[in-house]
Amino acid sequence: MVTEIQATTPPTEDYYPSRCGLPAHLRSRLDPVIYPKDWMSAPIAEVWLECYLRQGFMVLPDVFSKREVAVFREELKRLGNDPEHKASDATVIEPGSGEIRSVFNVHKTSPVFRNLATDRRLAGLAQFILADSVYIHQSRVNYKPGFRGREFYWHSDFETWHVEDGMPSMRAMSISIALTDNFTYNGSLMLIPGSHRWYAVCEGETPAQHYRLSLKKQEYGVPSDDCLKKMVNDGGGIVTATGKAGSVIVFDCNVMHGSNGNITPLPRSNVFFVYNAVTNHLQRPFSGQPPRPEYLAARSAVEPVDCIDQAFVR
Amino acid sequence: MVTEIQATTPPTEDYYPSRCGLPAHLRSRLDPVIYPKDWMSAPIAEVWLECYLRQGFMVLPDVFSKREVAVFREELKRLGNDPEHKASDATVIEPGSGEIRSVFNVHKTSPVFRNLATDRRLAGLAQFILADSVYIHQSRVNYKPGFRGREFYWHSDFETWHVEDGMPSMRAMSISIALTDNFTYNGSLMLIPGSHRWYAVCEGETPAQHYRLSLKKQEYGVPSDDCLKKMVNDGGGIVTATGKAGSVIVFDCNVMHGSNGNITPLPRSNVFFVYNAVTNHLQRPFSGQPPRPEYLAARSAVEPVDCIDQAFVR
Repeated sequence: MVTEIQATTPPTEDYYPSRCGLPAHLRSRLDPVIYPKDWMSAPIAEVWLECYLRQGFMVLPDVFSKREVAVFREELKRLGNDPEHKASDATVIEPGSGEIRSVFNVHKTSPVFRNLATDRRLAGLAQFILADSVYIHQSRVNYKPGFRGREFYWHSDFETWHVEDGMPSMRAMSISIALTDNFTYNGSLMLIPGSHRWYAVCEGETPAQHYRLSLKKQEYGVPSDDCLKKMVNDGGGIVTATGKAGSVIVFDCNVMHGSNGNITPLPRSNVFFVYNAVTNHLQRPFSGQPPRPEYLAARSAVEPVDCIDQAFVR
Repeated sequence: MVTEIQATTPPTEDYYPSRCGLPAHLRSRLDPVIYPKDWMSAPIAEVWLECYLRQGFMVLPDVFSKREVAVFREELKRLGNDPEHKASDATVIEPGSGEIRSVFNVHKTSPVFRNLATDRRLAGLAQFILADSVYIHQSRVNYKPGFRGREFYWHSDFETWHVEDGMPSMRAMSISIALTDNFTYNGSLMLIPGSHRWYAVCEGETPAQHYRLSLKKQEYGVPSDDCLKKMVNDGGGIVTATGKAGSVIVFDCNVMHGSNGNITPLPRSNVFFVYNAVTNHLQRPFSGQPPRPEYLAARSAVEPVDCIDQAFVR
């Protein structure tokens, strides 16, 4: 089934205004975090769901085996060496070093990652938490090389997806599969537990074609120092998501996160899928700007994921 | 007692060549780490000394009380707001933000930190480990603000002090007093255990007045990727020095260390003293360049520290 979603669909009321002249402040989240009330049919233990509900994220260990991780790493390497991918708009190059930072749209361009996106361990969990059919809003691999890995400043993904992509509600989630070990010191994801319960309204506006710059360096859609302080002090501080290769970080679309740079010799690569509920499909961007490209935010020819029991073997 | 050390003292043989045309490589350390053979009179437990010997550093908890830390923090704040200090050459400003990054020479310009440098808990330990009278080679406070704290790339202090300052041997050590809590995620010092046993010869040369740039961004005196990989893989990996305010990090002059940036709201300030053995006083810089200023490397009118039992109370 293919659902056509037009960029011309008029936006519904904007429940999450940002970058529209309002001063920076925190307001309450209006949407559920876990959509189903009944957790009996959950594909993971209830204790994990409680953790996700309270923190806005969970780190599941050993979801993929060493052999599976080896398959993913080989594909990561192949994409990084593929001249066609390197020249693509969907590839982000590090400013300065010229190294590849990310390749987007891998659920369309890589056979391995296309299968991975449909893996029941990931897509099945997303379908349960969002209580809906899901589709891939965005996919990417991040290389985060050693020695010169750049920081990524604090942000809520939802703020960007709402303002720049026209995602109406918080009914989306991200899953990141670790392809290398995540230590506290190699630029691992830092999250603010409980921050998903707030919505940090950001100041400033959204310049045209903001995405060309924002994937390298953020200047708009950045929460204020005071909002961040409040979330860290009144929430649960800061947690660094550590885990072995093959572990999986599942996080709500609105949890505040970022990462420090990485000067260690240890790279920190991952594959990353954003699942959105089909009923939460994109409208016109709330910024009033034209929509971002399809490789950043799937809008047309969106296909609900068929969950499949995958096994990745070389 | 004041010892006059002239910049014109001819250098002894260069046992630790670097930035002189040699390819990057690791060679063995030629000097002891702990100078006295008899540890009976040590001011700390033997287990700490074993840790220092093996790792090249130790983190001593609760050396200074909360009340003492409050005194130091007040002085830190005072220096940061003092227009005279802000305009001084001995103050380093963050590129970009214009915030103060470090103030050097505080053992001369601040009454509180002058006393702290002579505190028996610090200077007594340095005298014991180096088995000599000691003097302050360099002192500074680091502000490392939250949100926008910059990374500091891997380096051995001794490499710089040797090449740029003419310090002949590895008979010096650093003591850093934490004025805020050091977490794994707010840009705390990372060290490579065991790296003090090697000397990482660096490529490149030393441009004239290198220090003006190097305090903001390092480009010379940087170990190669391969040297760093070997030290991390064959040594003990990477350790982040965490601890509460009032804890003290003691580290050998040649241990490889650095720090990631700090995007968290939590600043990471410290006071930092380098103790050098008086018999290891500076000669002409091995780079052949003129010496760096006195506030970076004390050379003339060097005064051995008189150990005093200090107590800091408001």
